[in-house]
Amino acid sequence: MNTNYYIGIDLGGSHAAIGLVDDSGNIIAESTLKTQEYKEAADFVEATANAIETLLLSNNIGKNLKGIGIGAPNGNFFNGSIENAPNLPWKGFVPLADMLEKRLNLCPVKLTNDANAAAIGELKFGIAKTEGIRDFIMITLGTGLGSGVVVDGKLVYGHDGFAGELGHSLVSMNGGRLCKCGRQGCLERYASATGLAISAEEALEKSENSMLLAKKGNLSAFDVAEAALAGDKLALKVFDDTAKVLAFVLANATTVTSPAAFIFFGGLANAGELLLSPLRSYFDQYISTVYSGKVRMILSSIPKNHAAVLGAAALVIEH
Amino acid sequence: MNTNYYIGIDLGGSHAAIGLVDDSGNIIAESTLKTQEYKEAADFVEATANAIETLLLSNNIGKNLKGIGIGAPNGNFFNGSIENAPNLPWKGFVPLADMLEKRLNLCPVKLTNDANAAAIGELKFGIAKTEGIRDFIMITLGTGLGSGVVVDGKLVYGHDGFAGELGHSLVSMNGGRLCKCGRQGCLERYASATGLAISAEEALEKSENSMLLAKKGNLSAFDVAEAALAGDKLALKVFDDTAKVLAFVLANATTVTSPAAFIFFGGLANAGELLLSPLRSYFDQYISTVYSGKVRMILSSIPKNHAAVLGAAALVIEH
Repeated sequence: MNTNYYIGIDLGGSHAAIGLVDDSGNIIAESTLKTQEYKEAADFVEATANAIETLLLSNNIGKNLKGIGIGAPNGNFFNGSIENAPNLPWKGFVPLADMLEKRLNLCPVKLTNDANAAAIGELKFGIAKTEGIRDFIMITLGTGLGSGVVVDGKLVYGHDGFAGELGHSLVSMNGGRLCKCGRQGCLERYASATGLAISAEEALEKSENSMLLAKKGNLSAFDVAEAALAGDKLALKVFDDTAKVLAFVLANATTVTSPAAFIFFGGLANAGELLLSPLRSYFDQYISTVYSGKVRMILSSIPKNHAAVLGAAALVIEH
Repeated sequence: MNTNYYIGIDLGGSHAAIGLVDDSGNIIAESTLKTQEYKEAADFVEATANAIETLLLSNNIGKNLKGIGIGAPNGNFFNGSIENAPNLPWKGFVPLADMLEKRLNLCPVKLTNDANAAAIGELKFGIAKTEGIRDFIMITLGTGLGSGVVVDGKLVYGHDGFAGELGHSLVSMNGGRLCKCGRQGCLERYASATGLAISAEEALEKSENSMLLAKKGNLSAFDVAEAALAGDKLALKVFDDTAKVLAFVLANATTVTSPAAFIFFGGLANAGELLLSPLRSYFDQYISTVYSGKVRMILSSIPKNHAAVLGAAALVIEH
């Protein structure tokens, strides 16, 4: 029997990972594009189509490509489009699934929120599958903060396809950091690689004692994590503050769907216990008694980026 | 063909409404108990059983009673119990469904969160049914604030049966009013009949110009609504402040399940546009662009208390 193949695309604010996936969820080969290099969506579609054609040729996949799934920020499963994604170079309404389907003319193309795709990946191939977790919220910590909400083993889309945007929950009634979405105080301006670096820069303004001072003005989340692991007090305080705002929003989200777990992945999730340990502690303070001790904070068991690629592919494996 | 009958019980912090319901969702007859008069759960079960027996006798219902459904604060559908309900006189774990089923020995008894029951009632007999709304969050504004989350036409229970407790979402990371649940800053301490009265009392401490001054120290939410309708500025400001905290929590909940509507009922919901008008205005400020103009704030179309009674009955009409 012939193996069927699928393409899963994880479209992020900085990179797009394009994976060739088989029926069993193995990633056979992968390409990467730099998202910000494509000022027009049409240019990105062309580059993506070329990358897919190269993957198919070099892996000798002919007519066995059965579908292409895309996980994208602000992606809408219902119409296959991206709408007003703050972290992408293309503004307004971009019917990406239709554009790629027409350009390639090979197979159906489906699209959803990148974090929704990660959640589906986790459900079908990750820790949610291996541990039988049917109610969870996936949190992807990259350039921004994405989320995918799973209730009773099914992804929640909401009435318009835009459920699971916890990155745009507000951390306060009274404003906060300006977000690319135009409002003040969105969670992802604090709890993301970008947010962590901003918090560290702000802390450095008031401090003369941190190993991060040498990189002041040019900090990355990786720098902050490295300093925290080395015991730098300012860096540890930045992780603590980040965990606090994240715990606040996750505790309130828990009152909506009562998940058994929050599952984390993405660049900042690689910081692991640096973030999860204070997160659990603040979550315990913020959460209502009825949920106490019931909600796990765990890392994705799928290697970095693969959850989103596998989840995107799973969109079409299902269809 | 014989009509089947069901009992729906709406158990609230101050009153319990016990309704005799037919297949079509008509409430044939109703009894009411004062919850706080029963210091032990067993006494409440006995009084409830007596009230049900009286309803059955006086309406000549014999063997056609097919089930009893209960909507109760902190009610858990999975095990038919109430756990640590802050607004009820019975503490700890109360297996109310089992207790009533054994006492009556007539038919199965099911139990869920009171607001979940209201949501089911709305879905089967209310505005959600007539307008075809399949994704919504029910908000019950009584002594406390209850909620029931509906996704794609199904009630969300969560992994432990405790989804939909927005009354215990926090309005701030930095504390607030002490809640009966032991934490500080729970939404229901602001947005509920109790919360509104507390807000008015607080405002009166700093004011010498309000028609509410005469009732200072003994205010009800009804007094505040009456004064607001008469144009009292302090009372209007209290409604505005209440709408603001409620809008904050509802906007953040929207990022989780993206509902098409919030549907309100309960004592405070009877204030109607006094609350909903500023609520819509603050919600527009707090909500992310992707949801702008999509989320309706509407009142239940089922008469007061009936949504919860019908929803509770619907629990067993389904089974």
